[in-house]
Amino acid sequence: MPHFAHIRHKTPSLLAAPRELILACAPMRSHINLSHIVRTCGCFGIRRVIACGAAKLHERIARDGAETVDFDVHRSLPPVLDRLRAEGFQLVGLEQTTDSENLFSFSFVSKTVLVIGNERVGLEADLLAKLDRVAEIPMAGLPHSLNAATSASIAIYEYCRQFPGVTCGGESS
Amino acid sequence: MPHFAHIRHKTPSLLAAPRELILACAPMRSHINLSHIVRTCGCFGIRRVIACGAAKLHERIARDGAETVDFDVHRSLPPVLDRLRAEGFQLVGLEQTTDSENLFSFSFVSKTVLVIGNERVGLEADLLAKLDRVAEIPMAGLPHSLNAATSASIAIYEYCRQFPGVTCGGESS
Repeated sequence: MPHFAHIRHKTPSLLAAPRELILACAPMRSHINLSHIVRTCGCFGIRRVIACGAAKLHERIARDGAETVDFDVHRSLPPVLDRLRAEGFQLVGLEQTTDSENLFSFSFVSKTVLVIGNERVGLEADLLAKLDRVAEIPMAGLPHSLNAATSASIAIYEYCRQFPGVTCGGESS
Repeated sequence: MPHFAHIRHKTPSLLAAPRELILACAPMRSHINLSHIVRTCGCFGIRRVIACGAAKLHERIARDGAETVDFDVHRSLPPVLDRLRAEGFQLVGLEQTTDSENLFSFSFVSKTVLVIGNERVGLEADLLAKLDRVAEIPMAGLPHSLNAATSASIAIYEYCRQFPGVTCGGESS
């Protein structure tokens, strides 16, 4: 019979190689959402978040993610996406669009840029035009729309589930 | 070549049968986190959230989830968990514990109660003692600890991925 005892400050499994997932966020309304995304990236061992405009982090929310994740702020996202595609990354938006693919059955490639839209307007036409694919989280009830940081975290989880990585230290779970 | 056009106010797929997942939350520090959990439940078609103590919802965050999700507040969780187990539900905690199972490879059963701990102290001994299983989201970097609403949302997503349900209306995605 299993015995469940809380493990505080459990040593995380360390990844033998850095993850190839990059997050790219359109200009967000909320520094809180952006900070939550950076915290989630830190936890999952994702090293790079690209943001736009007046982006900044609340360290109280992003926690150590603010130090361990490279947080690059650019004036505009499309030129950065062009560059990343030229480097061999697949550009995947997270949105409800025509020709989107259900995240439940979405197969990521390892070199992926996950592109997150603004809380109000989502991914706009200039960004949608850059994408290779769009993943959509299927909604089954009201309010039909997840919080932006929640949906980003779910897609990050799904990527990591598909590419759990090889661990090289710490406790395995 | 795919064409991605944003679909606003997309009609969600309706589930032919209600989901059998129930959320049960220990007394939480933050009404904001609880409200985010209720919003996520609403979006995924989960109908019942059990909370404890001085729980209340911010409707601005929970959105329509506050109306579509049954939100039951109890004085204490253990007696409710006993009742649900007697009704045939498997009690699954979300925590870092001894004998926990990695969520990446966790197989849910349909009748599941997902038990969420307090932001600071997690699932305490009185709740851990009630559980059949513990699922753990593997951490690969700092801050080694996801926000409580984020981790709950990820586990809800994983359950729904395994039990997508049969849809009976709306657009399929």
